[in-house]
This record gives sequence, C-alpha cells and structure tokens, in this order.
Amino acid sequence: MTSTLVERLQEALPAGSVIVDPDITSAYANDMASFCDAGAPAVVVLPRTVEQVQHVMRTATALRVPVVPQGARTGLSGGANASDGCIVLSLVKMDRILEIDVVDRIAVVEPGVVNATLSRAVNEHGLYYPPDPSSWEMCTIGGNIGTASGGLCCVKYGVTAEYVLGLDVVLADGRLLSTGRRTAKGVAGYDLTRLFVGSEGSLGIVVGATLALKPQPPQQLVLAAEFASTDAACDAVCKIMADGHVPSLLELMDRTTVKAVNDLAQMGLPETTEALLLCAFDTLDPAADLAAVGALCEAAGATQVVPAEDAAESELLLQARRLSLTALEAVKGTTMIDDVCVPRTRLAEMLAGVERIAEKYALTIGVCAHAGDGNTHPTVCFDAQDADEGRRARESFDEIMALGLQLGGTITGEHGVGVLKKEWLARELGPVGVEVQQAVKAAFDPLGILNPGKLF
Amino acid sequence: MTSTLVERLQEALPAGSVIVDPDITSAYANDMASFCDAGAPAVVVLPRTVEQVQHVMRTATALRVPVVPQGARTGLSGGANASDGCIVLSLVKMDRILEIDVVDRIAVVEPGVVNATLSRAVNEHGLYYPPDPSSWEMCTIGGNIGTASGGLCCVKYGVTAEYVLGLDVVLADGRLLSTGRRTAKGVAGYDLTRLFVGSEGSLGIVVGATLALKPQPPQQLVLAAEFASTDAACDAVCKIMADGHVPSLLELMDRTTVKAVNDLAQMGLPETTEALLLCAFDTLDPAADLAAVGALCEAAGATQVVPAEDAAESELLLQARRLSLTALEAVKGTTMIDDVCVPRTRLAEMLAGVERIAEKYALTIGVCAHAGDGNTHPTVCFDAQDADEGRRARESFDEIMALGLQLGGTITGEHGVGVLKKEWLARELGPVGVEVQQAVKAAFDPLGILNPGKLF
Repeated sequence: MTSTLVERLQEALPAGSVIVDPDITSAYANDMASFCDAGAPAVVVLPRTVEQVQHVMRTATALRVPVVPQGARTGLSGGANASDGCIVLSLVKMDRILEIDVVDRIAVVEPGVVNATLSRAVNEHGLYYPPDPSSWEMCTIGGNIGTASGGLCCVKYGVTAEYVLGLDVVLADGRLLSTGRRTAKGVAGYDLTRLFVGSEGSLGIVVGATLALKPQPPQQLVLAAEFASTDAACDAVCKIMADGHVPSLLELMDRTTVKAVNDLAQMGLPETTEALLLCAFDTLDPAADLAAVGALCEAAGATQVVPAEDAAESELLLQARRLSLTALEAVKGTTMIDDVCVPRTRLAEMLAGVERIAEKYALTIGVCAHAGDGNTHPTVCFDAQDADEGRRARESFDEIMALGLQLGGTITGEHGVGVLKKEWLARELGPVGVEVQQAVKAAFDPLGILNPGKLF
Repeated sequence: MTSTLVERLQEALPAGSVIVDPDITSAYANDMASFCDAGAPAVVVLPRTVEQVQHVMRTATALRVPVVPQGARTGLSGGANASDGCIVLSLVKMDRILEIDVVDRIAVVEPGVVNATLSRAVNEHGLYYPPDPSSWEMCTIGGNIGTASGGLCCVKYGVTAEYVLGLDVVLADGRLLSTGRRTAKGVAGYDLTRLFVGSEGSLGIVVGATLALKPQPPQQLVLAAEFASTDAACDAVCKIMADGHVPSLLELMDRTTVKAVNDLAQMGLPETTEALLLCAFDTLDPAADLAAVGALCEAAGATQVVPAEDAAESELLLQARRLSLTALEAVKGTTMIDDVCVPRTRLAEMLAGVERIAEKYALTIGVCAHAGDGNTHPTVCFDAQDADEGRRARESFDEIMALGLQLGGTITGEHGVGVLKKEWLARELGPVGVEVQQAVKAAFDPLGILNPGKLF
C-alpha cells in the first residue's frame, strides 16, 4: 500500500520532496503539543507548487489516504499531529512573498512564508501585518490561517482572520478553489475565506493567500503596573476599556509567571506583586495615553505604575511577556497551555477560579493573559514522569475549560481545537452546532481524508 | 394549499402576525431594486419570538414552502424579493436591543433593530457601531447582516462582517443554532458566523446577534477637493493611501453626481469640477491630518482644496454625498445602481471605463464611490417607460461588471447579489467556486426552501 502511494506521489513530485525514511518522517509526527497522541506518517511530501499539491490530493483521494497539512508545527493543540499511515503535507517549501502593494495595502503570499519574514518585508514598505503569535519567528502564514492565530496585537488589531482577504485552496479531490478578493471590500457569495481560516486543515489545503495590511503605526510605548491582587488588576482592565481607550497591547502576568520569568532570565521583575499589567499605545502621543491609563490603574489600586521611558525599556517589558510560556515550561519540565477566553467583565472570576483549581489539584498553574481580550493562558506546570501529577494536570486543564464556558467564554481564543480539545468543542458548540459543523465538513471532504480526528 | 399553510402557521403565531390580504402582502413583494422580478407571497408572517420563527420554519419544511426573510427591504439587489407562493418572513417586529456593555464593548440585539436606533443607543454609552449604509435610518441590523452591508465608514472601520461576533440562527428545519461568541476572540470550530453574514437569508434565519462595538471616536472633520479629471482624483486617492493615512471617509462624486445633487437640493457644489473628493479624519487632530491630505491632493493636481471649518460644514458635505443616489434617481426617474469594487490602484481605469460605457450607450451614468475602498457605485439613470433606454441601461450595467472583473475587482462590494447579479456571481466565482458554494447551500438547506432563486 505504502509503495503504491509513494510511487503515485513520485509521478509528479521531485524525488527529494517525497520522504519515506522513518527517521525523518517521525520528526514530522507532531506539533508543539507533544503530549497529544500522534501517529506515524507513511510519507512526508514537501511540494513547491500548487500543481504538486493538487497531485498529492488527487492521489490521496484515489487511494483514500488521510492527509495532514503542516506549517512550522508550532501549534499548541495537536492540530498538525500525524495520524497513522497518513501523508504529511508540509507547505514550508512554498515560502515566497509574491507581491506587496502599498496603495492596495495587500500582500500575496505562499503558505510557507514565516510570519516574521512577512512582517519585516512589509515594514520595509511602511506597512504592518499585525498578527503576532508568540512563535512569530518560526510559524508560517499558512499555519496562522489554519489556526486563526492571534497574539499580543489583537486587543487593537484583531486576529489573523481580519487580515485574510482571499485564499487559493486545493480541495480534497484536487480541485483548485479561489475564494475572496484582493479588493478592500467584497460580498460576492458566501464568505468561504473566513470558513477556511481556523478550519485547521480539515476543509482544504491553503496554497496561497491575499492578506490585508495596515500602515505601520508609531513605535509603541509600554507601561507596567503592579497590583496586590489579580482582582484589582482585572478591575483596571475593565476601567481602561470602559473609559474608551484603545491600547495596542494589554497583557497580564500573574505572580507565578513573573517568578518563572525571573528564574529563567533574571529580568528583575517585581516578585512581590500578585499581578503585573502591561499596557501599550502606538498612538501619536503614547505618553499621554499611558498617563491616563496609569491614573486608572492607580484608581483600581495599583501599588506601582512605571511607564517605560523609551522604546528600549518597552521592548524589555515585552520580552518578559513573550518569555512567559517558555519560563513556565522550565518550572516542572512540561506544561499544558490552556487558551480560555472570557468576556472582559468575567476576567477576575476566571483568574480567581484558576487559583482555586491550582490549590484543589496541588499544582502550579501560572497565568499569562491577553487581558484586554479576556484571553487567558492558564499554564499547568507538571512533571511528565509523574503519572499522578500528569493525571491531575489533565483534570485541572479540563476544569479550567469548564470554568471558561460557565463564565460565558470559549475553550479556545486563539490556539485552536486540534486533538487536545475536541471533546470540549462538542460541549461548547452543543448538539446542533456539532451537527451543522459536521455537515459543513462533509460538504468539503466527503471521504474524510483531510486531517481526520481533529476538531470533532 | 395556502389555507393549510396559513392554518399551520396560525397554530403558533398570533392572528395579527399572519397576513394573507393580498393588498397588504403585495407591499412585501420587493426591496428597493424594484425593477427586479418579484413574485406574489402566499402569506406574510411577522413573528415576535425565536420560537415563532422556529414554528414558521418547521411549517415551511413540512409543507416544502419557500421562505423569504425580510428586514426593512432597503436592499438594492432584489435579495428580499418574494417568490410566488412563498412565506415572507419579516423580522421587523423583533426589534429589541437586549444588552449594551461598555466593558465588553458588545451589543446583543434582535434582527429587526434599525441601524440608526442601535447607533444612537450605543452612542449614549460612549460607544460606536460603525456600519452606516446610506439607508441607515431605515435598514435593520438583520438586513445588514444578511447583505454584509457597508457604508461610508468602511475605509477605516470595515464592513458589517467585522462587527458580528455571534449569531442565533433558526435553520431551515427549525433547529436553533448558536454560532460564535461574546468574547473578543474565539476560534472554536468553523467560523459559521461569518458564513451567515452576507448569505442573503439563503442559509438560515438570523434571530439574534452579538455585535462588537468601538469606543466613540472624536467628531470627524471633512475636506473637499476639486479635480479637473477623475484620473487626478484617483491619483490623489492612491497618494493618500500610499502615504499611510487612515481617513475615516474617502468618497468621490463625479461631475454628473455633483450636478444631480445641486439640482435636487441646491447645495451649491462646484459644478465646474470633474471630480469632487471628500476626505475626513476622526483623529485627535483632524485639521493636521487634513492639511497633509490637502497637500497630497494638490500634488495630484487638485484645483481647489477646502477643509471644513467645523462639524456643521463637515455635515453639509456629507449630506451632499448621502444624497447622491437619490439625486441620481431624480435625473431620469429610475436608476440601476452598480456596486463594483476594484483595487484602489485600478480605480482611475474603472472610472474612465464607465465614462466610455456611458458614451457607448448614450446614457447618463453618475458615479459616486467609496473611493478609499475602490468601491464604485456607477448609477445608470434611465427612463423605465422607454424600452430601448431600459435595454441599454441593462447592457451598460452588465458591461460595468465585466470591466470590474477585468480590473481584478468584484461585482459587489457591499450590496449583495440577490437576483440582480446572480448570473454575474457565477462569472466571478468560476465553476469550482459555484460548485463549492452550492454544496455549502445544500448542507444548510437540503430542500432548497430558504430564499430560493437568490445568489445562484
């Protein structure tokens, strides 16, 4: 079977782009949610053209072989994990930026372009591609589209979905579909573009994207505020939003996260604080905006408010935030990173609940959060060698999602469902939601060969 | 048949909300694209609750009766036109604003809420609901969602789709589906919310919406610039966008439109100009932004640049723009309003092409445009009593869409497809696009009872 498959693939793919050596293919088995189940791929293909991707999908359909599309495999939900005997379809070799236009404010790219590469390329034209997941130096635009990924910018600039104008997609049977547009507006037919964004490779293979760009904003300036309780920090978040501010970043790190970052990188962050809030503006007069926000933080009970003096100090504070997940991983060797998003008004309850859950299961759970979006990353730190701790980690992880749903939130703000949260997706969507989503899946992938076992 | 239908509907709907009198039902036969074909409804229902809508759809499914959902019927593509023997399902009685939250920056509304009513209600909380179609004083949020409508604000704030976070939808068979979220972010499963936005009532009946709001920006200040050619005006648009400006409005009126507005309302606009550009900023220092834009307009050859002194002068200029379509309608009694959106870089070619088409068919075609979006409204003015002129109007209308597609644009930037442009939708989407869109339609509406004959 595998030999037929490989022969058929090789008919239209150069030899070096069809890999069967298990020592190599096993490296493609999983994304960064390494504790999720992953199978062994039959073959890894690395196409360089749309036609080659079409050939892969035609072959997969003919032989009924599952296909798992992959970018840089930096995902956190196992959405790119291989299934046994699958074709891993890696898009990383399709990595050209085809066009950047300053008047139309668009970029046309292949899916394998790295986020940071695109960001820097458009910067050179005075333009800005906002979505900035933590993995932006590694992750690909195709992966960002597959998972509808977010980042620190979202509180002002929104998520990846807001920046995808049109897509070229190879369908399960190899047909090539173009969706959307390269114009600023367009409502011709159903918005299939948005349907593909966040579909985790389960509806088709994105082989090209037209992305919207913004003008490059002024350099942002950051303020740090310390609070004696997470309640007070969350109250500050609510005050900032109710007062009509539009920060370019509004992040929260709890005590556990602050300590972990200090332990990892000796950043000298204040460890006496219960919650550190970082707020930034990229406006024309960020100091004035930060002064107003500083006053609101003080009104909410901030014990210390420190605006950065300049871009360098701002960058240092952001570095601390960007290190959070890595630092928490160093605490016990392994983490389960949750991604619950709640209405801002319920953020304080969410953080208090996570603290209760950590106590109940005798676990270290650090929380960093895109606080301005209500998007929390409670990160369960555990020792993967300790079976009991592993079990407690999993239970606490689930209880955090249950809490999120109870507070009117969602189980995933930006990381996606993958295999990690598929049981929880059904709980969030409800029976009618699942029925409809499965009907959509069937309309695109009647044979069920596209990234099977993910989402549902 | 009709008597069975009416009896079944009346089982769960109050008597006054089931209308069969043809003198009344005929008033529900069409939207504002009155020259599009429209059938005679069998019955008009005006439900007040979600349960009543569910009953209507269960009845329609049981009896295989088509259902045409309607808001205020201000659409311009015949998307709300009745088909013979259908149930017209008017949502205008479901018009409550259920919630406005300043911290979460959301509103939860029923579909029949009028756009202006919502806009004013959120203003009172210091919030802003941007989408502002010309019909905003009449049109409903449900209709806006159905057509993904735009407006003057889009160049900065985007279209309706950007503001719909979650929906309650009654499906063809009466099941109630909740999509999306009330959080700032969320990626749990396929983005069905966006799929319903712009689906013109062909996938389900929107009975509730959670909308994102922005903080109320400062009052905008408008500048008017006159140009001796549309080419020069379009060059100014490109210069403004390439220079990184983010105007809150960037509109163009051609000579024909300016004259029509003067004729209708004696506004005293400069009739010697070939193109009038209106640009606005709602920033903290709009005068400074307008000065920069004014200089760019002059560099592009503006013959006159007049910044408004204050809000009152700004409002007058906007009024002129808002009157454009009404004024063009007064020219010959009837109009066909096109809605072609092209990349900004092709805007000048689009306007030149429309002028050629007007000459070729010996017709008056006025163009007003959301120039910053490349979204043009070439408006064919004709006498509906003159058969030959009507034929030429239709042919020129089609030729304008062909030109838009040729320039890399779309046949509809914000008005939708309805019945008016269904043949053109197929040309824009191509065969694979149509196949996939129809597969999606079949997944939601296997019996084909939801707004049949629209889109495809």
